[in-house]
Amino acid sequence: MLDALFRPKAVAIIGASTKELSIGNVIIRNLQEYGYRGEIYPINPTAPEVRGIKAYKSLDEIPGKVDLAHIIIPAKLVPQAIEDCGRKGVKAAVINSAGFSEMGEEGAKLQALFLANARKYGVRVFGPNCQGIINTDPALKAYCNFTFTYPEPGSVSVVALSGGVGALLMQGLFDLGVGMRMYASNGNACDVSIPEILRYWGDDAGCKAIVLYTEGFSDPKEFLDVAREIAAKKPVLAMKAGRTVQGAKAASSHTGSLAGVDIATELIFEKTGILSFGDEEEMSRAAMAFATQPIPAGNRVGIITNTGGPAVIATDVLVAAGLDVPKLSEASIARLKTTQLPQAALENPIDVVATAGGTEFRAAMDVLLDDDGVDSIFMNFVTAPFTDTHAVAREIAAVSALGRKPIVCNFMTDLSQERYRITMRILKEGGVPFYANPTAAARALGALARYGRLKRRDIGRPETPSGVEAATAASIVERARKSGRGVLSATDVYTIFEAYGIPVAGWKVVDTAAAAVAAADAIGYPVVVKADSEAIDHKSDMGGVAANLKDAAAARAAVEGMRGRLGATGALRFLVQKFLPGGRELIVGASVSRGLGHLVMFGLGGIYVEVLKDVAFKIAPVTRVEAREMLTSIKTKALLDGMRGEKGIDKEKVIDLILRVSQLLTDLPMIQEMDLNPILAFENAVYAVDGRIRI
Amino acid sequence: MLDALFRPKAVAIIGASTKELSIGNVIIRNLQEYGYRGEIYPINPTAPEVRGIKAYKSLDEIPGKVDLAHIIIPAKLVPQAIEDCGRKGVKAAVINSAGFSEMGEEGAKLQALFLANARKYGVRVFGPNCQGIINTDPALKAYCNFTFTYPEPGSVSVVALSGGVGALLMQGLFDLGVGMRMYASNGNACDVSIPEILRYWGDDAGCKAIVLYTEGFSDPKEFLDVAREIAAKKPVLAMKAGRTVQGAKAASSHTGSLAGVDIATELIFEKTGILSFGDEEEMSRAAMAFATQPIPAGNRVGIITNTGGPAVIATDVLVAAGLDVPKLSEASIARLKTTQLPQAALENPIDVVATAGGTEFRAAMDVLLDDDGVDSIFMNFVTAPFTDTHAVAREIAAVSALGRKPIVCNFMTDLSQERYRITMRILKEGGVPFYANPTAAARALGALARYGRLKRRDIGRPETPSGVEAATAASIVERARKSGRGVLSATDVYTIFEAYGIPVAGWKVVDTAAAAVAAADAIGYPVVVKADSEAIDHKSDMGGVAANLKDAAAARAAVEGMRGRLGATGALRFLVQKFLPGGRELIVGASVSRGLGHLVMFGLGGIYVEVLKDVAFKIAPVTRVEAREMLTSIKTKALLDGMRGEKGIDKEKVIDLILRVSQLLTDLPMIQEMDLNPILAFENAVYAVDGRIRI
Repeated sequence: MLDALFRPKAVAIIGASTKELSIGNVIIRNLQEYGYRGEIYPINPTAPEVRGIKAYKSLDEIPGKVDLAHIIIPAKLVPQAIEDCGRKGVKAAVINSAGFSEMGEEGAKLQALFLANARKYGVRVFGPNCQGIINTDPALKAYCNFTFTYPEPGSVSVVALSGGVGALLMQGLFDLGVGMRMYASNGNACDVSIPEILRYWGDDAGCKAIVLYTEGFSDPKEFLDVAREIAAKKPVLAMKAGRTVQGAKAASSHTGSLAGVDIATELIFEKTGILSFGDEEEMSRAAMAFATQPIPAGNRVGIITNTGGPAVIATDVLVAAGLDVPKLSEASIARLKTTQLPQAALENPIDVVATAGGTEFRAAMDVLLDDDGVDSIFMNFVTAPFTDTHAVAREIAAVSALGRKPIVCNFMTDLSQERYRITMRILKEGGVPFYANPTAAARALGALARYGRLKRRDIGRPETPSGVEAATAASIVERARKSGRGVLSATDVYTIFEAYGIPVAGWKVVDTAAAAVAAADAIGYPVVVKADSEAIDHKSDMGGVAANLKDAAAARAAVEGMRGRLGATGALRFLVQKFLPGGRELIVGASVSRGLGHLVMFGLGGIYVEVLKDVAFKIAPVTRVEAREMLTSIKTKALLDGMRGEKGIDKEKVIDLILRVSQLLTDLPMIQEMDLNPILAFENAVYAVDGRIRI
Repeated sequence: MLDALFRPKAVAIIGASTKELSIGNVIIRNLQEYGYRGEIYPINPTAPEVRGIKAYKSLDEIPGKVDLAHIIIPAKLVPQAIEDCGRKGVKAAVINSAGFSEMGEEGAKLQALFLANARKYGVRVFGPNCQGIINTDPALKAYCNFTFTYPEPGSVSVVALSGGVGALLMQGLFDLGVGMRMYASNGNACDVSIPEILRYWGDDAGCKAIVLYTEGFSDPKEFLDVAREIAAKKPVLAMKAGRTVQGAKAASSHTGSLAGVDIATELIFEKTGILSFGDEEEMSRAAMAFATQPIPAGNRVGIITNTGGPAVIATDVLVAAGLDVPKLSEASIARLKTTQLPQAALENPIDVVATAGGTEFRAAMDVLLDDDGVDSIFMNFVTAPFTDTHAVAREIAAVSALGRKPIVCNFMTDLSQERYRITMRILKEGGVPFYANPTAAARALGALARYGRLKRRDIGRPETPSGVEAATAASIVERARKSGRGVLSATDVYTIFEAYGIPVAGWKVVDTAAAAVAAADAIGYPVVVKADSEAIDHKSDMGGVAANLKDAAAARAAVEGMRGRLGATGALRFLVQKFLPGGRELIVGASVSRGLGHLVMFGLGGIYVEVLKDVAFKIAPVTRVEAREMLTSIKTKALLDGMRGEKGIDKEKVIDLILRVSQLLTDLPMIQEMDLNPILAFENAVYAVDGRIRI
């Protein structure tokens, strides 16, 4: 579908220029210098040729077919140019020109105009306000882009909303010697979207890993669906910027994007198994490891070092990244004893010492390859000037080539010296991912291991909870909608909860003090009485809550007191509910995330949510595995197990409650916000004791 | 004092070798290739010359004076070599050889032996098991070191416990184009210590900033004193590794160092104003900024960018590093309007857009220089191929040269292309700190700003609290010491607290139930009764605590019950204390940190300390500013201010209590451990309600 864009056999440049420092010239220069194998057709109303290539006055004059047109002319001329493309049968257009939706209403109108023309003829539009694409395939070498890095062919593809960051990532990979497959930076993305590009690359056998930069998605649900599909096929490394309020503001101003501080993008990454990064350099470096190394089967790393301190730093970083540095087996230590120098430290890290040569390095690596307690190898290799560093590099490359266990190398050297450049080339040609310092190398291995954990994690499928009376809940919500009520009444909320099997403390809504006493008698004392009125939002501040009422007299007095304080209008009703002393306060909440569905939140109530913001989010529908992760990912999870003599809570019942909430949200997408706050959790039971639903 | 080591006029190499790949050859090669201006004397028993330089059979045969000797011979021969050095009048020896304290008892004995010889003759020893030193001074060019990086002269000095990390830092600075002043890596550090080196560099006018790597200090107090002195003179950038249990284990095995997971080193950095890093690459990159840029006067940064996405990333990182990205003044925006291209975004970040040239960049920088609301400038500069990138670089260099406000540059380019290498050289020669990606550049500016905050912070001097009866406390501790009691009795603890003006809930220690009732009558009900016996460590688990006793009968019953449960021996006494319901539980604790004195801890009691580990530490003596920082640096600090209708606590009284605890620890250094747990804090008062002192 996107072949015309990514595999064009002929490219026209509408706005080709003879001026050296202009985009209309640079794009042709790039095609030439990069060695494009297809036809280049400069379009220029006056010049007979551009950069030595015959130019045409218009698309019509071009004798052959054109797959792709670059458009570099002023914004107001673009709709006509797209019309011309359509007539000529051009299949795709990269609109480099700016001045569209990113520039306000006037620009948005122009964008709508050219898009209508494109749809009329079936021309696919890439951009506008974008860089373009690159396909490094040696049979094609399509550099349809105005930036400056000429990547080597390889297996990593890069897609970025921002051309600046796209170029940065491409350059980062280039500097690391990582080959690239395809590149795309689509600016305003008015037609061809990042999800569509990802799907195209998902089917590209030459692409082994994808690197993605985004500031948010205009259609998060579309991205979620595609991400799930692609992340199952190959590693996707991704970074989302605009993570601070100020960063999000900067993002929203630069490409007319819909960016904001959303947590949804990170949650999509987590749900679909995309490997998330917070540092673009770290992401490029990780890509270097993904390009050549297998994914570690576990978290246990063996470290080989020929210098002390960098092994200490590496150990710190590896452990912080979730890896273990286990003891080696007795057999491994015995083998090391017979193969290492007398001063070597035969533990993990294995210090082969600075005078170790290729033989000692290789013997240490062989031990780690054979040790079943080790899943990956971290190498600290400083080019001690009194050793044959080429021999060491050859052994590391040989072990990497075996592909038995992933290996990354912290290669500490001076590349201004020819002898060490030779050592470096041995590593590079051997496909060894190497880095200039231990923290960088350890983080790259950390990313491989983190991806291994992601791949081994199976969140399963959403379940359908038993005993759900969906129709009851749906009719309540429908009735509220029809009557224009945004916030549901207590009766409605608790009835909906009960319809979904969400445990609720015994309750009844009544109109009079006498009815309240009767209800309390039936529920059993102590009870709590709450004023139930849409008009009263902060019940407890208004004196609308009376807790721990121990007998009929207290219940009656509470109701009468509220009538006095809050008015005797008929609209005022009373919720009588079982009062449950003790228990751990929990919160489950949900809200709509634009274009994605609901986010479900779990946390401990009170100060834990208010002061510590110690909560976990998931995108609905939530699976059982995800619900369990919500309980184990909060910082205060130890409180769920009980401590200081207190008993733990029934976590399985909390998980079941979250799954029922998730099902409710899935069935009733019109719910905008929902809170179960607090839920009281005990050793053998949980109860929602207050709830709120807004549609 | 260390002139012979760092400014040697003649160097002898004991163990000079004709073998190319040997340390005894490499050291001479380094001296030659780096261009050492002094005399080189190879010592070799058989070879007439080494690397073209006349060799001597022994030190005695050398005609001239020798300042410094490299010793590269087997460990067991080193004591004699030092003796020889002493006789010859050699002032300092760099012992590169390994096989000493890092190799166990046998090696430690050898180390003691050569050290005795060195002391006899006043020979200063550097190492053993070390790399050596470098002095880049063009008049000297002393490369007394076996590693491979040849640094350019400059103003940053590097000292590292680990030679591997030292070389790494030196290479990191070299790769960044940052000149170096001196370098030292002293391995086992048996004589010349890092503090001594720091003091020497503190007086070195050519050294503008110091970069330090450590895994802990054998004499932390000495380091604290020196660090305070040096950090007041020039920036010290430092990294401590061995931060995880596994990392500390790796550290302890590699140079015979005394490393462990200590928090003390980080606390020393904080107390003395050393800028701490957790990433060696980030530290080198920060040094690049410190080498040429002024320290920002505040946290407000103006961002100029010619590409969107990297400005979003930079904004995220700058904000996370504690910087503000403020709105520009009306005047600034008006000036931008007249000087920028029509598509430019005239806010902060200022997007000058990709087609901006030197004129637009310069105008934007001038606006930020003149805007009083901006303290520093962050530059995103991608070398768009259709702009005159040299002109842009010249303007950035010119603004950097003004020295009015610090500037760092994210310079995104392809250095494999000659035209961009020229652009890069313009920045480099202009002293502009530049980095290849926005995160790296933003972190470097973040380090400058963090240092600015450190310099503006004045922790003040420790105060002497009023009303302290030090003699009372000292005599109690002395009595306990004499009687061999490690854990003080309740009477002793509370009497000591009262002697230091630490508020304690009204208390009395009694022997009988009758006396308990009398005490409770005097204190006022409710009271708590606690068994007071050294033998009962977990009082509450043993039924040794009875709280909220509301009258005489309850108090009597409590005492009699404890007698029954815990034995009727005379050693069992009872603490009767005012029972204080409510109040916020706090903890203040202290323990001895090896070689440093006491660390004082503050936190909220109960689950906050047990589950969240939400505590703050300071090294005693604690100043008033530091005590206040303890209250504001915990994550749950909002609880001190009150919330959910609860009142806040009296923070000034907590600060006063911490200062009194600090004074107590200063006066009584024999205290090993002390806890005030809990302290109950109210709106207008705080009381220690349980305490423990171990000497």
